[in-house]
Amino acid sequence: MARKAICDALAMDADLIILPELVTSGYVIESDAELNLIAMSDRDELFESWRGLIGDRESVVVAGFAQRGVDGLVYNSAAVVDRNGLRAVYQKNHLWDEEKRWFEPGKTLPPVIQTAFGKLGVLICYDLEFPETARDLALRGAEIIAVPTNWPLAYRPDGERSPEIGNAMVSARVNRVFIACCDRVGTERGTQWTGGSCIVGPDGWVLAEREGHDSGMVSADIDMSLAADKSLNRNNDVLGDRRPNLYQTLAE
Amino acid sequence: MARKAICDALAMDADLIILPELVTSGYVIESDAELNLIAMSDRDELFESWRGLIGDRESVVVAGFAQRGVDGLVYNSAAVVDRNGLRAVYQKNHLWDEEKRWFEPGKTLPPVIQTAFGKLGVLICYDLEFPETARDLALRGAEIIAVPTNWPLAYRPDGERSPEIGNAMVSARVNRVFIACCDRVGTERGTQWTGGSCIVGPDGWVLAEREGHDSGMVSADIDMSLAADKSLNRNNDVLGDRRPNLYQTLAE
Repeated sequence: MARKAICDALAMDADLIILPELVTSGYVIESDAELNLIAMSDRDELFESWRGLIGDRESVVVAGFAQRGVDGLVYNSAAVVDRNGLRAVYQKNHLWDEEKRWFEPGKTLPPVIQTAFGKLGVLICYDLEFPETARDLALRGAEIIAVPTNWPLAYRPDGERSPEIGNAMVSARVNRVFIACCDRVGTERGTQWTGGSCIVGPDGWVLAEREGHDSGMVSADIDMSLAADKSLNRNNDVLGDRRPNLYQTLAE
Repeated sequence: MARKAICDALAMDADLIILPELVTSGYVIESDAELNLIAMSDRDELFESWRGLIGDRESVVVAGFAQRGVDGLVYNSAAVVDRNGLRAVYQKNHLWDEEKRWFEPGKTLPPVIQTAFGKLGVLICYDLEFPETARDLALRGAEIIAVPTNWPLAYRPDGERSPEIGNAMVSARVNRVFIACCDRVGTERGTQWTGGSCIVGPDGWVLAEREGHDSGMVSADIDMSLAADKSLNRNNDVLGDRRPNLYQTLAE
């Protein structure tokens, strides 16, 4: 399915192609034996096969996988693959629920990668619930944040969006960046997923979204230059108006 | 109107009463002469008159005013008044648009005040657009954040809430705090206000809201103990899961 999704997106000339968190394995892990079975090296031939699909295009694929680190520990990671192969790996810093049982938390900042279409940041799922993460990426120049995710279906009052999409909207708006989330769909070993893939613009409004059980693609044509302009008017700028000397508690 | 609003709220036994930003004057300032006319000392008899309304109740009033500081400069401030008088003043740290022409930015962190009903933080309007502010208040123990505000009416797609209420929802949710915003209504010297007063719970859902031209009150009975519990499940905690050593860029 991942291979077909990449091919379908490449056929549409997609510059940035995002697949869900842990797309190579599934999310719900039940044993150490299973974890060991799904853990992949970042030199796994799968990434080479995705590179082959990309060919000489400038497209970039971001997808989640269970990574066996060089330290032997297993990380909930995202691979960034382009025509040169595996460009970067991000190891999820904020682990959700049972992930703490299976995965080692990442120890380094998420990457900001210069691509043909602009500067790409990467987060995974629960990371985005920490407003520090998108802010940090924006401060380091990210113009679009790719978020492989697996959002368990959460309560919401009638008529409301999933809280995770609401969060993506606000995170995009306060940083004036694009945020694109690819979520899992359906039910896996009793866990129902939101299926809330979305693409949000720097003004915080949704450009494309879907919620529900069916797999499929969300796509949008975006003007990346919008994310380079952080101004709200001639006197305000979402990054320039920050007061870092008043934010010391956040880094302590 | 402020006096009547306080009386009406006290008649309902309100613990926390919030009035808009710059409620003592109006928001749209056109000259230095006008600024000088509206600027008030924090020893102004108005606060004493509000204290008189409160009497021996444990209620707290938070309201915006133009403050003539002891340094002679004018601040966009919020007064916190209780039965002992002026309890605290917060000077807005993030100034919006033409405010930069008239007001001095605050230089100190917003207060966190122990009240009979819980720990109260204060922000003003544009402050809340910086996710650092609500996070900082939550880290310093605030359980409810009072936000006197004046939200100029902004574009929104059909069917969407005002982006500012969306932001309040997410800010409440990611910190598991209550956020209560009192907005200005109507049109003032050509500026149309959102009238988007709202009370949001720690799960990010709106407990009470209104949007529109008519003045009035938004109220909710809340269980403050919900904001003391930062856990999302047995393995996750919105503050405990933070990775401050990875947030250094935010304080630089």
